[in-house]
Formats: sequence, C-alpha cells, structure tokens
Amino acid sequence: MSALLESYVAGSWFRAQDEGEPVLDAVTGEEVARVSSRGLDHAALVSYGREVGGPAVRRLTFHERAGLLKALAKHLGQHKDEFYEVSRHTGATRRDSMVDIDGGIGTLFSYASKGARELPNDTVVLDGGTEALGRGGTFVGQHIHTSRTGVAVQINAFNFPVWGMLEKLAPAFLAGLPSIVKPASQTAYLTEAVVRRILESGILPEGSLQLVCGSAGTLLDELGEQDSVAFTGSAHTGEILRNHRAVLHRGVRLGVEADSLNCSILGPDVKTEDPEFDLFVKSVVTEMTVKAGQKCTAIRRTIVPAPMTDAVVEAISARLAKITVGDPADESVRMGALASLAQRDEVRKAIEALRNSSDVVFGDPDRVDVVGADPERGAFMSPVLLKAHPGAAEPHDVEPFGPVSTVLPYSSTEEAVELAARGRGSLVASVATHDPGFARDVTLGLAPWHGRILVLDRDDAAEAAAAGGHGSPLPVLVHGGPGRAGGGEELGGIRGVLHHMQRTAVQGSPDMLTAITGRWTTGSQRRDDDVHPFRKSLQELRIGDSIVSEPRTVSLADIDHFAEFTGDTFYAHTDPEAAAANPLFGGIVAHGYLVVSLAAGLFVDPDPGPVLANFGVDNLRFLTPVKAEDTIRVTLTVKQITPRSSADYGEVRWDAVVTNQDDAPVATYDVLTLVAKTWDDQAHA
Amino acid sequence: MSALLESYVAGSWFRAQDEGEPVLDAVTGEEVARVSSRGLDHAALVSYGREVGGPAVRRLTFHERAGLLKALAKHLGQHKDEFYEVSRHTGATRRDSMVDIDGGIGTLFSYASKGARELPNDTVVLDGGTEALGRGGTFVGQHIHTSRTGVAVQINAFNFPVWGMLEKLAPAFLAGLPSIVKPASQTAYLTEAVVRRILESGILPEGSLQLVCGSAGTLLDELGEQDSVAFTGSAHTGEILRNHRAVLHRGVRLGVEADSLNCSILGPDVKTEDPEFDLFVKSVVTEMTVKAGQKCTAIRRTIVPAPMTDAVVEAISARLAKITVGDPADESVRMGALASLAQRDEVRKAIEALRNSSDVVFGDPDRVDVVGADPERGAFMSPVLLKAHPGAAEPHDVEPFGPVSTVLPYSSTEEAVELAARGRGSLVASVATHDPGFARDVTLGLAPWHGRILVLDRDDAAEAAAAGGHGSPLPVLVHGGPGRAGGGEELGGIRGVLHHMQRTAVQGSPDMLTAITGRWTTGSQRRDDDVHPFRKSLQELRIGDSIVSEPRTVSLADIDHFAEFTGDTFYAHTDPEAAAANPLFGGIVAHGYLVVSLAAGLFVDPDPGPVLANFGVDNLRFLTPVKAEDTIRVTLTVKQITPRSSADYGEVRWDAVVTNQDDAPVATYDVLTLVAKTWDDQAHA
Repeated sequence: MSALLESYVAGSWFRAQDEGEPVLDAVTGEEVARVSSRGLDHAALVSYGREVGGPAVRRLTFHERAGLLKALAKHLGQHKDEFYEVSRHTGATRRDSMVDIDGGIGTLFSYASKGARELPNDTVVLDGGTEALGRGGTFVGQHIHTSRTGVAVQINAFNFPVWGMLEKLAPAFLAGLPSIVKPASQTAYLTEAVVRRILESGILPEGSLQLVCGSAGTLLDELGEQDSVAFTGSAHTGEILRNHRAVLHRGVRLGVEADSLNCSILGPDVKTEDPEFDLFVKSVVTEMTVKAGQKCTAIRRTIVPAPMTDAVVEAISARLAKITVGDPADESVRMGALASLAQRDEVRKAIEALRNSSDVVFGDPDRVDVVGADPERGAFMSPVLLKAHPGAAEPHDVEPFGPVSTVLPYSSTEEAVELAARGRGSLVASVATHDPGFARDVTLGLAPWHGRILVLDRDDAAEAAAAGGHGSPLPVLVHGGPGRAGGGEELGGIRGVLHHMQRTAVQGSPDMLTAITGRWTTGSQRRDDDVHPFRKSLQELRIGDSIVSEPRTVSLADIDHFAEFTGDTFYAHTDPEAAAANPLFGGIVAHGYLVVSLAAGLFVDPDPGPVLANFGVDNLRFLTPVKAEDTIRVTLTVKQITPRSSADYGEVRWDAVVTNQDDAPVATYDVLTLVAKTWDDQAHA
Repeated sequence: MSALLESYVAGSWFRAQDEGEPVLDAVTGEEVARVSSRGLDHAALVSYGREVGGPAVRRLTFHERAGLLKALAKHLGQHKDEFYEVSRHTGATRRDSMVDIDGGIGTLFSYASKGARELPNDTVVLDGGTEALGRGGTFVGQHIHTSRTGVAVQINAFNFPVWGMLEKLAPAFLAGLPSIVKPASQTAYLTEAVVRRILESGILPEGSLQLVCGSAGTLLDELGEQDSVAFTGSAHTGEILRNHRAVLHRGVRLGVEADSLNCSILGPDVKTEDPEFDLFVKSVVTEMTVKAGQKCTAIRRTIVPAPMTDAVVEAISARLAKITVGDPADESVRMGALASLAQRDEVRKAIEALRNSSDVVFGDPDRVDVVGADPERGAFMSPVLLKAHPGAAEPHDVEPFGPVSTVLPYSSTEEAVELAARGRGSLVASVATHDPGFARDVTLGLAPWHGRILVLDRDDAAEAAAAGGHGSPLPVLVHGGPGRAGGGEELGGIRGVLHHMQRTAVQGSPDMLTAITGRWTTGSQRRDDDVHPFRKSLQELRIGDSIVSEPRTVSLADIDHFAEFTGDTFYAHTDPEAAAANPLFGGIVAHGYLVVSLAAGLFVDPDPGPVLANFGVDNLRFLTPVKAEDTIRVTLTVKQITPRSSADYGEVRWDAVVTNQDDAPVATYDVLTLVAKTWDDQAHA
C-alpha cells in the first residue's frame, strides 16, 4: 500500500485515523498515494491560522512579505527536478509540468517584485487620493485597505497542483493573510510534496500556511466574517459553496473561478495564407492538447467565419493528426493522460451530449493509439474536434473537460459576440485578427462577458506564445470571469492582494489622517526645526518635516532669458500681444518649467548630504499663471518615506507647493528623491 | 380611497389590476396611497431596460451622461418644495427631509462632477497602466472596464425614499446601465412623485429608468449574468436574496447594504471638559433622533471608557430630555414619527430583547409626550438609552431600528476594538478623540470590520457636522460594510461606477491596444505627417500624431549656467569631485529640470495656434543621467484626447520621451495641454 498523505495542521503534521482512499497514477493505473483527512480538527486549523499565522504575517511590512516570497521562489526553484518527477504521475508531459511548476514559481517571483515596487513599506495601502469633505480644509476623507484578520481558505482543482496553490498563496500572503490550502485529492501528492519543501525551509512564518489533504469536511462551518474561500473547480461545486450557510449567513467572502466555455474567434479579415490563420489553428490545437485539455481556460468553442469553416476544420485536423498520445515520460509524446479514468468517462459523456447538435470531425472518443503505456490502465484519449449544426445549443452549455473543441460558424461581428456570450460568462476569449477595427469592435463586445481577452496577430505572436498564449493566466493580469465562470477575480498584480483586504473610508482632520495613514495629508501640521530636511538621513526624517523657502521675484528678463536659453519661445512667454489674446493668460506668463526650476533653486540644499538624487516628479499642475514681477516661494514637506530593504537608501516623496505674493498656489507637485538611510556630515566633511 | 401608485414599465405608466394595499401616514395614521404591482409584466420590464434603455445610455460618453445627471439635479432642485410636502407623511421633520431630498440631489451633482472630471469623454475606462508581457515590447496587457449589458435592479429601504433611489441611480447611469427602481411600499409615494418629475423632464434617455411600486414579484427570475441587484434593507432579506436561484445559479451580481450595529467610541484621552466629550454626546443624540433613529448608519452601540460610563449616560440623557417628539410640521418638534405602527412594534420588541442584558436608563419604550399629533394614531416613540451589563451579548446582535442606543464600557484599546468587532461587520464607526496615537491604533483595528470610520475632534467638528457627521454616507466615500452589514459597496465616487462595469484584461500588440482602448500605447505606431501637431486643432489631432525633435547637445556651460540662473547649485551639478562620489551619478549631471526645459524648447511650436496652455506634467521619471556633451532629443506623441463638453477646448495628453545619443531613454513623462477644438491659422494670421 502506498503512503497516506498527511495534512499540516496547527503546527504539526497530521495523519488521518483511517487508511484513506487510493489515488491512482494517471498513466499506469498504479496506486500513487492514499488520502484522507478523517479526524482532522478543523476548529484548531482555523484558530491556529487566525491566532498564530495571521498576526505573524501582519507584523511584517509588504516589502518584508515580498522578500519572503522571493526567497521561497528561489528555494522551490532548487527542488524543481523532484517536483517534475512527481508530476509525471498526474499524466502531465514535461511541458505540462512546466506550466504548473515553473508557472507557480514564476507567480511567486512576480508577486515578490510587484509587492516591493508597487506597495509601500508599510502595512496599510492607500486607495486613491484625499477627498475634500468641506471647504475649509479641516475635514477630509481617505480610503485605506487593511488586512482582514481571518484565514484565506484555498480549495484548488486537480489540474494545477502547484500553480493552483501558489497563485492563491502569493497574493494572500502579501495581503497579510494566513492560507489554508486544500488540494484536490486526485493530485494532492504533488501539492503535499511542495508544501513539505516550503515548511522545511522555514521561510514563511509559522501558521501562515496549513494544508488539508483529503475532504474539507466541516472546515467551512468554522469560518466567519473575516475569512474567505477561494475556490477553483466546477461551476456545480461553486454553486454548492455559494449555498453554504457560512457564505449565506456569516459573510464569508467566496471567490469562485469555475470552468467555462471559452472561445477563440477567427477574424473575417483572415485568409488561409495569412499568418493569423496558422496562429489561430496552432492556438486551438495547443489549448486542446496541453494538459490533455484539462484547463479551465482551454478553447471549447472555435468560432470562425462561415465560409472558413471547412478550411479551419481541415487545418486543425491535420495538426491534431500529428499529436502523439502516451506515456508523458516518452519524449515523442505530445499529449499525456487525463487525470483519471473517471475523468475520461466524464469527457466521453460530454461528447455524447455535444453530438446531439454537432458531428465529430476528428478523433474517436473511444479509441486512441498510445505510445509507451497500457491503453487499458492509463486515462488516455484522442483529441476530438466537432463541428456544430446551425443553431446548436450544447456547445454553449456542455463542457468537456478534456482534449475537445467544437467549431461554430458566424456571419457578422454581432453574431460572433452573441455566440461568445451564449457561454454565459467565460474566463478568456481570444481573437486572431490583423484588423484593428474588428479587434476593437469584437473586444469591446466580448469584454462584459470575459475576464481576459487575447488579440493574436503577427505582431505579438512570438511573445504571446512565450507567455503561454490563450490558456495562460498571467500573474499581472486578472484571472476570472463573470457569470458561469464564477464571477471571481484572482491575480492581476496588486489587485489580487487587495481582494484580501477591506477597503474603508476614513474621515477626519488632516492631522488625524496623517497619523492614521502614515502619509502627510495636505492641511496637516508641518515641522520646521531649523534643520534643512535635505540634511537629514532617511532615519532622521519625519513625516511633516518641511522647509519654507525664501521668496524670489520673477522678472520679465528671467522669462525672456529662459525662452532664449531653452529655445522654448512659445508666444505666451515672448509675444505680449499674442499672449494678451490667449484666453487663459491675458499677457506674458512665465514658463511652467521656469517656475519649477526656480522652485528647485529655492528649496535645494546644495552641499553633499543624504539626498542622493531627484528621480522624478508626479502630478505637477500649474494652477495660477506667474506673470512678470510676481514673487514666488515654495514649501517642501516630507509626504511619504519608503525605506528599501535591498538598498542603503529609500524613497522620499515630498509635497511641493509654489505660491505667489498673494499666497495663491501657482504649482503643486510631488518631488521624488532617493535619500541615504544614514549620513554623517562629519565623515563627509 | 387614496390613489393607487403606478409603476413605470416598458415606456408607459402601469396601473395594477387590484385596488392595492393601503399605506398610512406615519403621523396621522390616515391612508396616503395604495400600492400594488399585480399584473406587472416583469419580463417586459427587464427586456425594455436591456434592449431600449441600456443601449440608449451606452451610446453616450461618460461626460454626456454626467451632463444629464447635472441637468437632472437642477430640475429636481426646482421641485424640492413639492417633495418636502409629500415627505411629511413619512414622519420626517424638515431636517430629516433635507437629508433625504437635498442629500439625493447633492449625490446627483457629485456624480455629475466626478464623471466629468475623473472619467474620459469615452465609453471605456482604463484601469491601471500597461503591463509588459514580454521583453521585446510586442506583447502588452491593459485592464479595461466596460459597461455590463444588463439592468441594474435597485431595491430600496423605506427610510430614504429619495436619496435611496438617487444614490443608486447616479452611479449606475454613469456606468451605462438602465435602472429598475423598486422602493419600499411604506414610502413609495414619495419615490413615485420624484420619478414622475424625472420622466416628465425627458432628461434621461427613455428606458434608462423604470419603476416598480409594490411587490418585486418574479422580477429576479428574469435576471441573468449581466444583471445586478443592489439591495438596501434588513440583513434577513439580504440573506433571502443571496439564496435566490438567479444569484446562486445565474451569476446575478448582488450587492447588499444591510442594517448594522454601528458603534461610536469615546477616546480614553477625553475628559468631560474637553470639546470631544460634547462632540461625542451630541453625535450620539443626533444619530438616535434624526429620522427617529431609522438609519442603517445610526449609532446602536455607544462604547466608552469604563470610568466615563456614568458621565456619558448623564450627558446623553440630559440632551435627550430636550428632544420634543411630535408632528414634524410643528416647528418645535425635533423628532417625528417612526415610519409605521408596525415598525414601532418591531423596535419595542428589540428593546425587550436588549433588556435581557441591559437596563433602560433614559426613556420609556411605551410612553412619550407628543406635540401636535394624536399619540394613538401616529407611530411616535421616546428615545431610549440603555446601559449594558458586563459581558452583555444582545447589544451586539439585536438591532432596534429606531431611536435607541446602548452604552457599553471598555478598559483598553484592544477591548474597544473587540467590542466593535462583535457587531460582526458594520457600515460605520466613529471615534471621538484628540490623541493621534489612539486614533491610529483604534482606526486600524476597526478598519477590517467597517466600511467607513469617522474620527471626530475639535479640529474637524464644524465641517464634519456640516457634512452630516457619523450617520451620513457621502457620495465621494464608499458606503457599505463587511459581514453583517452585507459585504457590499456603494458610492465612493467613481468606485461606485466601476461596480457596474466588468473589468477585463486585454492582451495584444501595442497597435491593437491603441485601437481598442483609444489611448496611445507605448510601442505602437506614430504618425508624423510633416505638420507639427501643435498646429492641429483638437478636431484635427489623432491618437499617435507625433513629432521627433531636432537634437541638442547639453554643454557643461549649459549646466553651470542653469545652476547659477535658477539657484539650484546642488553639488551633483556643480562640484565635479562631490558629484563623482555620488553612488548614482559618478560625475557632473544635468539638472532634471534642465532636461525637461530643453525638451520643451525642442518640441514647442512657438506661434499662436490651437495649443492654449501646458497645464501640467504627470509621471515624470529621470531614467538615465545626462552628462555634459550628451545630445538629447525628444519625441512627443498624442496619447489621449478629451474634448470638454462645456468648453471650446479639450485636454490633450502627450507621451514625451527624451533620449540621448545612444537612444537610451533619459526622461519619460506625460505633458498635459489644453487645445482649442477648432483653429483657423488664416483667421489668426
């Protein structure tokens, strides 16, 4: 008897009280592992996550969490070969395993990078700018995102035992939540192998990752308002979860990413000799055969201009004929086995239903030549292409979760969109076209029904294929779709992190908002302690440190000179008569660039010091024209401080306001600088 | 018998087939109207919205929709007196009616303003920046929001018959969706009066607003994947809706904003003589008595430092004693009637339940002095204050939807947060404190459990009160809360618009993304037709129009001179030795402001023309230092064109890239200009 998979619960490995159910190798039919969660203490699981894991993660800043994800990605990368070996039992070819294993590790790297670049080195995320709630400036609003204090339960599908875990774990961890991972039993042995490596490494804080191998049992009963469940799997199970009392009555947040009847559309501009024709055919064949078509994102509906139907069927069939099916360990094999014999039965049943309104035009659902394996014991199957009768209903409703697609003809852009929409919401659609007009019309028509749309043409084909094409969710893009596809969203870079956080509108005085958000809010107190803030290191600087500059009068000669020096002789700066006719200025005005250049001259402390560089400016707005003989001054205030974990400096964002002699704001902007963490004037003297 | 309220369905007013149920005046008990939807064709209602209303709204740009909302707000403002008259029957005082009627009209104005300022003059919203999906730059991603193609069903509560409709209608309309409004029967006569004025005006496109007076009947059965339901009302009804098959099986998006056990917390820093003590007491009394406490946002739990309990009870009771109850038409009356006798019974039942663990310390639930009305026929009730026993459970669970609050003591910040969290998710909390440290700790502790938090102190008190204080949702801030409060979000400015749209990740070549989004994407084709783009009017300019400037060599003399002229003598520009020691530069570099000033000199066309002004710069980043004798040039490309409906010019956003002699990017930024819609060089010659 094979080994019984263990669960990791409340700080130790748990072994079920029975012998478990067998899980069979998809290729050989031999037992790979046994799985059971009988006797698992779900209450302990959830409370350990809430009380140990969550607080441990939330003590870290986003940058610290990102650093751990990066370390974890590197660590798992060192054990890849081992995971590839285990992955073979799932029926996966080397290429299939790459999507799962390297794809999962790549997702960790992507979130590590996004977390460090796009989130503050803090534990609160600000959402949008401040909102004035009164005219006097004493009452303002700011939306913030804070970490939910519950657990993130992740119920994964059998088809991506590694990626499926890591793509949910990474954003949840970055958001400050502990994860409870429940893999599908069919391939849980691979997930368990990866989790063992993660826990061994000690990289993640204890309690931030727990594992349930076997049934989820009463896990959901333990959940409440701050907990969430992210489910990937069938629409049917998604509905059962929606109906669970924890979701209906206790406000558990449920995200569902379900199988969907994704389509790919060939543009009416494409002739058989165009590169887009081959790209389209290749893409359909790839999506039918990678993971033996067991992907939520696979192309189930191949929508083509009516006159192109036969050409498309012929070209796809020709390519499918070259697909060798068999033992994924054999190098000549292009498509491995389905996950189990039971899965194959499901697919055959679905094809039977499709045959009500479609004809099989390639492949035999019941027969296939198999290389290097026993066709009786492994879950092998031929790719099957169907062609729909006019008005067919089944292709829009029945999902064969295997190497199967149905060709449907269309006659107008509207009809193509209507056919796609009959899938009642999908994860992804693709369009092969080189016509920008059609691309725009069809994409905007498809968009309300899809979470992702790929436009494929000769220009992006090579890089699109390298990124995985139609079927590959990417960590920086949202993954999910409306309606039947579940209505959820995952990934999408930081969007996927914010899903785990609560958005709250905070109202208060500017001083209070500064204290709460850690970012200086316009209207709150400034600190001016006679030390120029450019002389303070990152460690010494405080939010609100500021300097009010000396005044400078801008002369007409300055404006003339600047125009001549820079070559910016725009009439508003040089031609009194024309400038007077300008509806906004009514006379000569100083260049905006002159104003900010002079402002820098007013606020800069010139000597070497902790401020290393000005690397940018954000949100510069010129509010009042500066005329000759106007006198300006600038107030510079520390708005946000972001130490870099990986460098001996950090970023300081300064609020800059240039005012004129009437105290009217002339220009407002953020100045971005790099500032050394420490600085010793004596040492540099 | 009073008039039977009509519904507006599929282009005409519908009158039910029966006599309807009576709705009684809250003050006099007399019949105000009758209400029924028997015989209403829900299928026609939904399909008219989808097929007539939706397409009509989506033909308009966001700016055009915003313009209609503004016109509508003005129109309703002219009929306010009429609405105030009708509102009296609901038991509302003049102040209560102001919150409802003026609050609703103000929400329209706010959305009109936000729509014009923060959304493009287009029908697609871009979400975030482009994502590079390959290193070669041929494959990029962009998230977009498009309008869902269904109907927005809005089921409103009885307490805000005007604001409740308009706060849902405004963001849905701006998002391009037709609304189906179903007011609560108890106060539907006021909603119907407002809808009649809206339809009469002809301002909104036909089909974009329909009305159901009476039961929603089988309305939900008609809904599908592109439709949404926004419900405000009891948590109980919210659960019934979550359980509806349209939500469970057909992907109807459901937003729930339910009653919640909101709290207000007095800070431990506050002494009875501090201004925050009075502010706190006033706020609690206001929230107990405005709308007779019939607000989802009212303060049900008054959480105070244990030693302050008696002082708080005493101060609140003293103020409550001054609240005159009676006919809202009487000027001396501070609190009107509850909406109905049935509502009053509910509140009395809730107080009975609360008494299990709390004592009534002010008011008698069964007796009140009434001014100017018959206490037997009107739904009058005294404000009731309770004080909880230690460990009381009921105050966190039972919601008295009337003029009732319970005082609970706490001993530490953690306990205050724990007590608040026992409400299992609320719409709003407020905190009265002048201690920024406590404000930060308690706000970040409360945030995961709340949709909005108000920090009240002497600095923001006046403007906070003017904005409505604790109980007032504001159009620019999100309204909703997690858990028991329903888990939904409404309002929040443009956030509330995006709730009605589908987010989709679009992948393609830069050219395709430019075509689809209408915004120039880095890497896509530029058009250079020998006409300087500064010579083209807004109508003539096209996305991608560009100019590549002549080169200019930056000399050391230029840098010296710029330093001297502007006063920006930062050592990196002036001191070769110190600059060489800078870890980022390794020698003298040109000022960033010099680079962009020279770039302007290179791209500007100086003569009077359609470009009126440069009003700002966004996202300026200095990527490569410019050293003496480097040669720079700039490429300027039209990125986005936004015509202003209300002016004879529009905004043009230009992509600017400054490169050096090695074609390395030196600086990238967006230049923002105002450009006249038309321009005739001849006429200006």
